[in-house]
Amino acid sequence: MARWLVILAGGRGERFWPLSRVMHPKQFLTLIGDKSMLETTRDRVATLIDDDHIFVVTGVDYVEKVAHNLPRIPQSQILGEPRGCNTAPSIAWAAETIHRRDPEAVLLVLPSDHVIQKADRFLRLADRALMLAAEHGGFYTFGIVPTHPETGYGYIEKNGAAFGDAAVQQVKRFIEKPPREVAEKMVASGRYFWNSGMFAFRVNEFLRAVREFLPALADGIAALVDNPWRIEDIFAELPAISIDHGIMENARSVYVLPADIGWDDVGTFGALARLLPRDGEQNAAHGYAIFVESENVTAITDGPLVSFVGVKDLYVVATHDAVLILSPDKSQDVRKVVEALKQGGSHEHLL
Amino acid sequence: MARWLVILAGGRGERFWPLSRVMHPKQFLTLIGDKSMLETTRDRVATLIDDDHIFVVTGVDYVEKVAHNLPRIPQSQILGEPRGCNTAPSIAWAAETIHRRDPEAVLLVLPSDHVIQKADRFLRLADRALMLAAEHGGFYTFGIVPTHPETGYGYIEKNGAAFGDAAVQQVKRFIEKPPREVAEKMVASGRYFWNSGMFAFRVNEFLRAVREFLPALADGIAALVDNPWRIEDIFAELPAISIDHGIMENARSVYVLPADIGWDDVGTFGALARLLPRDGEQNAAHGYAIFVESENVTAITDGPLVSFVGVKDLYVVATHDAVLILSPDKSQDVRKVVEALKQGGSHEHLL
Repeated sequence: MARWLVILAGGRGERFWPLSRVMHPKQFLTLIGDKSMLETTRDRVATLIDDDHIFVVTGVDYVEKVAHNLPRIPQSQILGEPRGCNTAPSIAWAAETIHRRDPEAVLLVLPSDHVIQKADRFLRLADRALMLAAEHGGFYTFGIVPTHPETGYGYIEKNGAAFGDAAVQQVKRFIEKPPREVAEKMVASGRYFWNSGMFAFRVNEFLRAVREFLPALADGIAALVDNPWRIEDIFAELPAISIDHGIMENARSVYVLPADIGWDDVGTFGALARLLPRDGEQNAAHGYAIFVESENVTAITDGPLVSFVGVKDLYVVATHDAVLILSPDKSQDVRKVVEALKQGGSHEHLL
Repeated sequence: MARWLVILAGGRGERFWPLSRVMHPKQFLTLIGDKSMLETTRDRVATLIDDDHIFVVTGVDYVEKVAHNLPRIPQSQILGEPRGCNTAPSIAWAAETIHRRDPEAVLLVLPSDHVIQKADRFLRLADRALMLAAEHGGFYTFGIVPTHPETGYGYIEKNGAAFGDAAVQQVKRFIEKPPREVAEKMVASGRYFWNSGMFAFRVNEFLRAVREFLPALADGIAALVDNPWRIEDIFAELPAISIDHGIMENARSVYVLPADIGWDDVGTFGALARLLPRDGEQNAAHGYAIFVESENVTAITDGPLVSFVGVKDLYVVATHDAVLILSPDKSQDVRKVVEALKQGGSHEHLL
């Protein structure tokens, strides 16, 4: 059973404006280290899966960027979606395409814009999940032990060891982004993980589940692979649904591997700020910054020098044509600026 | 007696970094309205003095910029100093040059980077001062009624009406930048004005005072006008002293015209911030800014869009290659960033 990797790289990254742009979303940014998050995602599992076994699903506008970022991946394996339909259609498209070439394939599905600080541990877990899927079948997820009652993530409840191994837990249920009180109870109980959005499974088992739980998607994707020139029409009709909600919540034999891997989806500037090293005054910089009598300030710049005098508790993001100054507790609200720009017709600052 | 204008345009504007740069200091900025401060200074007295009676004294590096800004002023009347020696040498150089053409000249001396909001009143006062100088001789200053105990300005103490007119006060003494307690007492007494750095006098009377009080300067300037090719050597030897300290404090027949003219030297971002119109949340912008849930924020940009989410009490200055974020009470401390840049060798951000 050959291993295949499906990288999901369709994000539009509005929460990272102005660093990310419509034409340069988060997966292409160099937020940590000197590679794009997309490259880092591929490199993480380079020892497990070869480049000619990788598919990247992205927006049609980003196909060229992906090809430029990952030049060794065959161009035909970069799938460009004419509109974003959430994760189930993206994965189903890649899966159907892979299945026609290799019906015995085992798939690893990874988002392209997450940080994983303990790369070795993740590599071992991914290897384990692919082996388990090959050996036993079933759907494997990677569960992050929650550090706080995050309301922006989905949760996975565990249900006891599978295969006689506490490192593989059966899944009792998936919980979508919960209200705060619910999140607090879940975290306190110790029975829940964050759903990191990474999966491993056999391609044929996945496609059977799509057929069973999302038959319209199964039909649409089969039609798409048979008639690629009809992509616009077919995508217009596909159900926009996540793999979690559309497949995992319904599937049998779903497992979670507790994953202490230093994971972060880096969904906001706040998350990015937490990942940066800080000086004695709790200031952190990604790019060139000068701090004078300032504390707990995070500066992220892709070019301009950013300097501070006598301020504290701020996030600042600077590019050559746009600057964002943000209270640390408002990092979810960047979209309000993006909305204002759209309404004001300032599209040049979004591209 | 013909009227001549001397504009002092040698400032290097470090307090306005990054908006001002070594090669683009404050007098060339468009801080208020759509003209540079230098142009505005000239235009303010356009009805009093013709372009061919204007001298501008500036740094040698800025001569071209001044010529570009004020194209109708004869090039020979833009004097470029090889180093800044404070105001007395600048004015003396222009005065000596004018005196050789027109020994009866009456001079109006204006800094090039101040704001005067009540232009009509100022025009009448300048006209008055020039008339008084022509008629009676003496040195005329323009005194601003203090609104707060500013420690960054010089003060002028009045000594009773001159020429039987309360609108022209004799000057008792000049006070250099005072400590705060002294400033508070002066403001409370009602007998002191801020020294706005603008003057009117007869050129021959001024040059006599230079000869009397600053003989080394008188010699240097005479040598300079006789031997312009020796400018480097001569400037290296000139005493660096202000007209206030070197001349006005010593001269007899010094007068102050109380000047309710909406004056501001716009010496800091704080001063500029006070001049900008504010919205209901006390936010102000010079350039394109978006405020989301923010208050008492001042954004000054010469290009980049600046956006705010959930912050308050900030000054932000943005250019394409440098951003400054400043606490409103730290507006005097911009130089600390400039110092850090110089020490760090980041000269590209200063030019």
